[in-house]
Amino acid sequence: MHAAMYYGNHKLEIEDVPEPTPGEGQVKVRVSRNGICGTDLHEYYDGPIFIPPDQPHPLTGKAMPLIIGHEFSGVVTEVGTGAINVAEGDRVAIEPIYRCGHCRPCKAGQYNLCTTIGFHGLMSDGGMAEYTVVPVDQIHALPDDIPLEMGALVEPMSVAYHAAVLGEVTDQSRALIYGAGPIGIGLWFALRGMGLTEIDVVEPSPIRRHSIEALGACTLDPTTVDVAELIADRTNGDGVDAAFDAAGVAPAIESALNCIGERRPLISVAIYEKPLTTPLINLVLRERRIQGTICYTGDDYRAVIALMAKGHYDTTGWVDTIPMSQVVEQGFEELRAGRKMKLLVDPTS
Amino acid sequence: MHAAMYYGNHKLEIEDVPEPTPGEGQVKVRVSRNGICGTDLHEYYDGPIFIPPDQPHPLTGKAMPLIIGHEFSGVVTEVGTGAINVAEGDRVAIEPIYRCGHCRPCKAGQYNLCTTIGFHGLMSDGGMAEYTVVPVDQIHALPDDIPLEMGALVEPMSVAYHAAVLGEVTDQSRALIYGAGPIGIGLWFALRGMGLTEIDVVEPSPIRRHSIEALGACTLDPTTVDVAELIADRTNGDGVDAAFDAAGVAPAIESALNCIGERRPLISVAIYEKPLTTPLINLVLRERRIQGTICYTGDDYRAVIALMAKGHYDTTGWVDTIPMSQVVEQGFEELRAGRKMKLLVDPTS
Repeated sequence: MHAAMYYGNHKLEIEDVPEPTPGEGQVKVRVSRNGICGTDLHEYYDGPIFIPPDQPHPLTGKAMPLIIGHEFSGVVTEVGTGAINVAEGDRVAIEPIYRCGHCRPCKAGQYNLCTTIGFHGLMSDGGMAEYTVVPVDQIHALPDDIPLEMGALVEPMSVAYHAAVLGEVTDQSRALIYGAGPIGIGLWFALRGMGLTEIDVVEPSPIRRHSIEALGACTLDPTTVDVAELIADRTNGDGVDAAFDAAGVAPAIESALNCIGERRPLISVAIYEKPLTTPLINLVLRERRIQGTICYTGDDYRAVIALMAKGHYDTTGWVDTIPMSQVVEQGFEELRAGRKMKLLVDPTS
Repeated sequence: MHAAMYYGNHKLEIEDVPEPTPGEGQVKVRVSRNGICGTDLHEYYDGPIFIPPDQPHPLTGKAMPLIIGHEFSGVVTEVGTGAINVAEGDRVAIEPIYRCGHCRPCKAGQYNLCTTIGFHGLMSDGGMAEYTVVPVDQIHALPDDIPLEMGALVEPMSVAYHAAVLGEVTDQSRALIYGAGPIGIGLWFALRGMGLTEIDVVEPSPIRRHSIEALGACTLDPTTVDVAELIADRTNGDGVDAAFDAAGVAPAIESALNCIGERRPLISVAIYEKPLTTPLINLVLRERRIQGTICYTGDDYRAVIALMAKGHYDTTGWVDTIPMSQVVEQGFEELRAGRKMKLLVDPTS
């Protein structure tokens, strides 16, 4: 089969490798689509970062070289011994997290914070291949009315859904989202799915603004509007009930900390590459908080899949598919240049 | 009577002024001790900041010049009409917050976040005087076994107690306090009062470390110990359940964000004069949070007074009394130079 094998910085080869065989408790999945994540770009241009270069990961036993790809959907083609509640032909989205099961966060059900966490496609052979094998407890069945292309988006949409949950909102809440990339879009869908109607997306890029506007979102251009002043006017000084930083830049943090109400959160769902200058006094004076969030658990997957089954998510205008043979040229390069928002890889072409 | 009248930057006069008369719903209090707060120093050296220079405060009708002092205790000497549940001779601590009563936080009982908040002694004639008048709903009776000198500390100890509550700790929690000034000391007493036994106070100053050690605290010197490494060792990598920043400096924030466990808070109880470089990635990766906190409500006053009644607080070694006539020379100057930790003013001398 064809697979995208990662050998280190700037080294990704489309190779012909043997098809994997499902072991005990595993299933073999014929991959339909595998999304390219910002993490994949970091591994390619700046890595290896999360991919273990030498030492095998304790939960997977794998190190470089390995097949990348952790956002994917597919069809079960073979069921290993001991894998129950699954059948050949099942359409599935994969939850890529490997967890130890016995650290404090694992015991508390917060395995997204497992102290030895691993990811399928970063610490094991992943989904950017025609086939992959995964533990049966990491698959989620996709209802028939969810296309497999949509199924490949469950992973990033679950990152956003998990962040939305930490915002502690109700359907009466008013929210601000900073950044209209894939996670910002996912936040908008998640908050809409929770019943919110008062959501503004703050995004300086006209292309990204128009993209999310086409989905139905209201946007604010922070280069022409004083967001804090506008929100103060609209809320009679009360501020928003939650803000979400999916931009990861200091101006977003600063603006958000002027916009949220007392005792309300700014949810940080960005990968900050360096420390940011943060006006902590804005936390103190109104007892606001900054809450970090990362990844998801199965609860988020189930919530996103339920919303997708209702037709709640729309890929129009922001998701494209490319052949795996062009993953660097049409994938990484286009995403890095900001010419594409979200790209799915078709491993059969 | 003698009073410390604030006329603006570097202008504080000890004057002879008429004794105030309690109006409707007010009581007149003979002040026993009035603590000097960091806020008072800011008003003197850098102000006016909170004290209204021209426009009268909407809740008090007062502007500069006014008598400063908002941390005080005393004895009721006269009861205005309509002031109930109080009698001449009552020993009291004063809660200095004036609130509007109808903004969103006031309605939620969080009047420390009132959008037009005022303070007795910053927006009205305060406690650095022989007498002052206060609304009866801002007094708290002091049990006989709490000395009035201790009563003047209820206000700053309530700031710390409120912060401790936001730490969401139990008696099994492990906590870190950054900074051993009066608020750091108050945090230590508050957390001990909540039953915690595993508390470390991080403080680079030997004088401040020895001062809180004399009260029974365990300390860490961050100039000689790698606090994050030590905490990781002691907690088997789990981290502490809550950290408290009463230092207000970047190294404290950075250290704390390496020490707290997943989903646990860093409580910010410092007045940050400028934005700090903050490693937000440390929030994201472990779903930690930074929670701001300010002031207190009556619940905190009652909790502190109850602990004081049990003999829980100790002023040995960190609290001194000076005559009001020397408030600048022996007060502001000594505190500013770091030669004294906490000073109470005796308005009769």
